[in-house]
Amino acid sequence: MLARDLVEDYPSVDVGADAVEAARLMGEHRLPGLVVTGEGGRPIAVLPASQVVRFVIPGYIQEDPSLARVLDERAADRIVNELAGRRVGDLLPPRTKDLPVLHGDDTVLELAAVMARLRCPLVAIVDDDRVLGVVTASRLLSLCLHAT
Amino acid sequence: MLARDLVEDYPSVDVGADAVEAARLMGEHRLPGLVVTGEGGRPIAVLPASQVVRFVIPGYIQEDPSLARVLDERAADRIVNELAGRRVGDLLPPRTKDLPVLHGDDTVLELAAVMARLRCPLVAIVDDDRVLGVVTASRLLSLCLHAT
Repeated sequence: MLARDLVEDYPSVDVGADAVEAARLMGEHRLPGLVVTGEGGRPIAVLPASQVVRFVIPGYIQEDPSLARVLDERAADRIVNELAGRRVGDLLPPRTKDLPVLHGDDTVLELAAVMARLRCPLVAIVDDDRVLGVVTASRLLSLCLHAT
Repeated sequence: MLARDLVEDYPSVDVGADAVEAARLMGEHRLPGLVVTGEGGRPIAVLPASQVVRFVIPGYIQEDPSLARVLDERAADRIVNELAGRRVGDLLPPRTKDLPVLHGDDTVLELAAVMARLRCPLVAIVDDDRVLGVVTASRLLSLCLHAT
């Protein structure tokens, strides 16, 4: 079994796409994150859903979440207001870590190793710079434990 | 809208439960993680799916995933062999970080703040030490963006 045998379809987002649309896509498909593509559809980053939430919450409230009670604002309004007019690229963490991208002919064990190293909820699988799909940690477990 | 309005059902795992069963459950329900409960069903930790993958991959391969190619082993066999005979408690990271647990009457903004702070893919919602369910980051985005 190779990495390409595990891939699932995923909704692709370009780094220049609208941030609200990207968050909506992630919510609809219930993915823990999205692969972000750049020029020519080449994957350039993974955007975890928790990073989108992180983007809309000010730093001082992240430090002390009980302060959220004093904000006179609905979470839904805050999320829409903060994301409006932003691009996907604006939501990416400032420092790009190792990119969780593997090739279709990598083994499942290599896939597991990269996922383990980056503590990443999903990995993109590419062939010749074309994204084949993603593999989530839960899908990896599901297929491996089903196969035995 | 309060935290309790967002909860989803989830399969509960006791800290003493069989590790293979827990991984299977996570795979079947396609959750990015599970809430781990202790005495009296009280939540004591969150086990991300990527942490299970991390547990079965030796440290030297996490450091250099290309070494996975030299292992003469199928990923599925490795996962089953490493998890066999283990308990859920064995899989938890050595240092427990802040626990992503909130109360049913916390606001959605507080929920978002905790999720942002811990970069956590899911948060457990409790009432009187009883787990009501979990909220994932993608569900939070989905509901907030649908509500506007």
